[in-house]
Amino acid sequence: MQRSIATVSLSGTLPEKLEAIAAAGFDGVEIFENDLLYYDGSPREIRQMCADLGIAITLFQPFRDFEGCRRDRLSRNLERAERKFDLMQELGTDLVLVCSNASADSVGDEQILIDDLRLLAERAGARGLRIGYEALAWGRHVNTYQQVWNIVRQADHPNLGVLLDSFHTLSLKGDPSAIAEIPGDKIFFVQMADAPILAMDVLEWSRHFRCFPGQGEFDLPGFLAPIIKSGYTGPLSLEIFNDGFRAAPPRANAADGLRSLLYLEEKTRQRLAEEASAVGNADILFATPPASEYDGIEFLEFAVDDNLGAKLSHWLERLGFVKAGQHRSKNVSLLRQGDINLILNSEPYSFAHSFFEAHGPSLCATAIRVKNSASALERAVAYKGQPYRGLVGPNELELAAVRAPDGSLIYLVDQQADVYGTDFNLQPGAVIGAGLKRIDHMAMALPADSLDSWVLFYKSLLDFEADDEVVLPDPYGLVKSRALRSRCSSIRLPLNISENRNTAISHALSSYRGSGVHHIAFDCDDIFAQVSRAKEAGVPLLDIPLNYYDDLAARFDFDDEFLSELAYFNVLYDRDAQGGELFHVYTEPFEGRFFFEIIQRKNGYAGYGAANVAVRLAAMAKSRSGGLRHAKL
Amino acid sequence: MQRSIATVSLSGTLPEKLEAIAAAGFDGVEIFENDLLYYDGSPREIRQMCADLGIAITLFQPFRDFEGCRRDRLSRNLERAERKFDLMQELGTDLVLVCSNASADSVGDEQILIDDLRLLAERAGARGLRIGYEALAWGRHVNTYQQVWNIVRQADHPNLGVLLDSFHTLSLKGDPSAIAEIPGDKIFFVQMADAPILAMDVLEWSRHFRCFPGQGEFDLPGFLAPIIKSGYTGPLSLEIFNDGFRAAPPRANAADGLRSLLYLEEKTRQRLAEEASAVGNADILFATPPASEYDGIEFLEFAVDDNLGAKLSHWLERLGFVKAGQHRSKNVSLLRQGDINLILNSEPYSFAHSFFEAHGPSLCATAIRVKNSASALERAVAYKGQPYRGLVGPNELELAAVRAPDGSLIYLVDQQADVYGTDFNLQPGAVIGAGLKRIDHMAMALPADSLDSWVLFYKSLLDFEADDEVVLPDPYGLVKSRALRSRCSSIRLPLNISENRNTAISHALSSYRGSGVHHIAFDCDDIFAQVSRAKEAGVPLLDIPLNYYDDLAARFDFDDEFLSELAYFNVLYDRDAQGGELFHVYTEPFEGRFFFEIIQRKNGYAGYGAANVAVRLAAMAKSRSGGLRHAKL
Repeated sequence: MQRSIATVSLSGTLPEKLEAIAAAGFDGVEIFENDLLYYDGSPREIRQMCADLGIAITLFQPFRDFEGCRRDRLSRNLERAERKFDLMQELGTDLVLVCSNASADSVGDEQILIDDLRLLAERAGARGLRIGYEALAWGRHVNTYQQVWNIVRQADHPNLGVLLDSFHTLSLKGDPSAIAEIPGDKIFFVQMADAPILAMDVLEWSRHFRCFPGQGEFDLPGFLAPIIKSGYTGPLSLEIFNDGFRAAPPRANAADGLRSLLYLEEKTRQRLAEEASAVGNADILFATPPASEYDGIEFLEFAVDDNLGAKLSHWLERLGFVKAGQHRSKNVSLLRQGDINLILNSEPYSFAHSFFEAHGPSLCATAIRVKNSASALERAVAYKGQPYRGLVGPNELELAAVRAPDGSLIYLVDQQADVYGTDFNLQPGAVIGAGLKRIDHMAMALPADSLDSWVLFYKSLLDFEADDEVVLPDPYGLVKSRALRSRCSSIRLPLNISENRNTAISHALSSYRGSGVHHIAFDCDDIFAQVSRAKEAGVPLLDIPLNYYDDLAARFDFDDEFLSELAYFNVLYDRDAQGGELFHVYTEPFEGRFFFEIIQRKNGYAGYGAANVAVRLAAMAKSRSGGLRHAKL
Repeated sequence: MQRSIATVSLSGTLPEKLEAIAAAGFDGVEIFENDLLYYDGSPREIRQMCADLGIAITLFQPFRDFEGCRRDRLSRNLERAERKFDLMQELGTDLVLVCSNASADSVGDEQILIDDLRLLAERAGARGLRIGYEALAWGRHVNTYQQVWNIVRQADHPNLGVLLDSFHTLSLKGDPSAIAEIPGDKIFFVQMADAPILAMDVLEWSRHFRCFPGQGEFDLPGFLAPIIKSGYTGPLSLEIFNDGFRAAPPRANAADGLRSLLYLEEKTRQRLAEEASAVGNADILFATPPASEYDGIEFLEFAVDDNLGAKLSHWLERLGFVKAGQHRSKNVSLLRQGDINLILNSEPYSFAHSFFEAHGPSLCATAIRVKNSASALERAVAYKGQPYRGLVGPNELELAAVRAPDGSLIYLVDQQADVYGTDFNLQPGAVIGAGLKRIDHMAMALPADSLDSWVLFYKSLLDFEADDEVVLPDPYGLVKSRALRSRCSSIRLPLNISENRNTAISHALSSYRGSGVHHIAFDCDDIFAQVSRAKEAGVPLLDIPLNYYDDLAARFDFDDEFLSELAYFNVLYDRDAQGGELFHVYTEPFEGRFFFEIIQRKNGYAGYGAANVAVRLAAMAKSRSGGLRHAKL
């Protein structure tokens, strides 16, 4: 497909936008009128700039409040159109978006609308230009594509066609399936936007909260599928009004935009295949190897130096991990417990070392087990992921890898690969079976404006799913969390952001100078046994206020002995509506950065203990300030 | 009145919140349950802390989902209540907020609700505790105060009363007037919250967008007046869920909270007086001298050093200002034109000097003309404004002054005062009549999280009014603007904020290291004469792209000659729905900070040219980057 994006979707001056659009690999651009008005070069110069950059101008937009305008204004409105036609010819584009009239004094008489649009199409046609007519969700009389097609059909002019925008249909809960019945060549243009589902005024929602396909909650494959069925083969274009995008770096954001279109195309292709619709032109949609099946996290790799490596190793041993191996040629050690493999890397001149230099002690790689690493890598690269090949010594296993959005690595490890036997001298006598069984989840702290980009990365490259966002109070602001999970849920990745300076998340970000791991949760079968062992071994546990347990007593029917045990071990508790139960305990942070969680799920509890995050964040704030604030009083 | 605030309204740990509440001068505090749960001291310690700080615990809240609960849960729910009663007794408060049941499986049968609440009141009464029953706007069966009063009346128990919250009534567009008919002693507690009018889900609106009285759009005096009429004399308490407040410094925010209550009380007292309601207990409301009538800006004072003072003086002279005087004893000069007086202050060891040291060349004082400066100062101080007395030499006029929120001064100058004759050697021959006539408005750039605080400052201390907020696009993000104006509109003060790093507003903020003046607009009768003179004198005007004028041509019926003139002089144009017209032109910024605007209003145009702000911001962005971005392409 011809992939396009509207200039309004990006931040910057017009030349900055056009450069970013070309660099991302788009084929075309919609020129949003205001971007042109505010630019101090002529339309001809913009035309030349686009030509030099190799992008087509797919559309000029918008032309407002035309059809059904007050009759005494019609001729003035036609003059206004002619001025804009002049401009389009200078720009070298033949298509203009006319959006349905939203003014209070416009008339809705169908014949008038048909006549007005035919007249405009006639004027446009005289110059070889075309009109794409779009229903705004807040149009005064016309706000559905069905009305638009009805008018276009009756106007019956070759220079007048339908222009579709997913937001205007899906925000009103419209059914897009009838689009399939519009002749493909009467659809002149298609705009795509996703959005979170918000119960608010549709105009405000549209102007501030649109996002790229895959970042929101609309069923966009359900919108694009009937368009493909109609036989449409024109541009697929992004038109995103988003407050965050208006300030985001345009190059990275444009790259996300292209990735979101590829993702939408793949999902639409799947949808058409599921429907077994015999659609010939589905082949114009992006195709890539399907995502792998995943079998959990194979290992986590920490970037440390010798000193911090020894410290972290000591921490982990107190949590029951065993030193299970030493790398044959590098300063890299392996700690194991149950199915959990943790690698501490302090090798100089390595990827881990440069990561350590940039971010301090941190998680520098995540290895995930896949069915077929070659096809997983091919998919990642097709989605514009950046593959990584590191230094590999003699006898070392080569691992396919791709960069995560924070610059860390995601290794793609074949299920049958023997990762450790090749590279490590394994400790023959190490007892590995133990209380902590597997990595339940791994939470990340991200800059607030990068959440959408991360969600799109994991959805597209790895075909992960995203849970709904939850908002949680920290004593110094709000924390937002959105969990990603592989389709089988064997890998879970809550992403945390905060827009406030002094929250736990913001503290983690500033210590990392960027994003980084926030905590890692280990699953077990008997929380009290594990916590008791950890406590005895001297693991510093996060202290939970007794008032929390008084409230548990009011909310649940626990006996006092059980409550005392929970309180003694600082174990938090949650119960879901289906009777699923969660027990979990947190450690203090390691070097003020990441911390560990020991977790026990019962009866299918699927969440992350959101009900307890606020008390944890308050305890962390107190721990950061060393309890001094209270002492001062 | 006893003034109170809920802990949830502020950021920080519980001790930080309590300290801030006491420091602001509140009499009491509502303990929000979660703040207690997350705190690692006992309820008795909190009680002691409040006693030491001299604040009463006015309320414990909330107790949820009680009345009409599933019958099999009633006894468990009563146990839960008894646990919380224990806690209240430890805290030493006798009143708990019970909010109407919001759970889907609750029942709405009136007799059941009455019986449940009577039972709870009986249990509370046995301990000398009281129940305040509140209607949540999203309550399952009960969501108006009328329903609450109906139930309380029928339950007829001395320990059960009505609890009112302005948000829950006004968000549903409820009419508060019937509150006057509830006996005052059956109203146990009153919570006050304002909010902007938002077309969104009421629960989300309530949880994230409440604000202090006077910062939003609710008619709160209309809510409080009937409460006073009822004979209520209990606490007036703020319960504000606001995402910004959760991260704001608690001391400054608590001070705003108290100010907002005083403001609400004054406005309610006025409302009652207007209604000529003979309400005896209106005297419990805060009273202060009424605001002055204003007669515009007497002078603006700039903090400079000798070098920048000479530069700025040269700038202003090119704009037609005349050096009209030199201070008798200080390094301070006066420039005049029409009714505009500008003072450049580079006196060492002065207030202006310390302001210059902190902020660089900037506006350090604004003198406004008032009818009675003594009473204006008294009012400002009653509203917790910080009065200022500076160094005054022999023969110098003493001016009443109060600190603005940015630390600059607001002088309150009596209309009849001869400000300049006493302090300045006036230039006898200076010709002062000229093209620029008066200060039309003065726009400020503020940190994003301080807008509400500024609005409240000007509304309360000076009784200004605030226009609705407008949102405008900068090439690198969004700018929000809210204009304050004195009631006669002789002083106009648009306040601009931006949450994005790279906008014009954020650039101004970082140059000032804080807030500062963004631009100053001078009014004239003939824009072309003024701009032509300025251009000839070498004033650098902000360059407006020609594309903007092409669009004016499409939108308005201008002849080409007139359009060329507009474009030649970089004059922007706007027309309002009533035919009011605005012509305006901007200078480049002085030292990258503030700039000037020349403005001509015709036919009663009352705005600030919002339609042209985006093109101005784009031109400013280009000017900042020296046009390099385009040249690079």
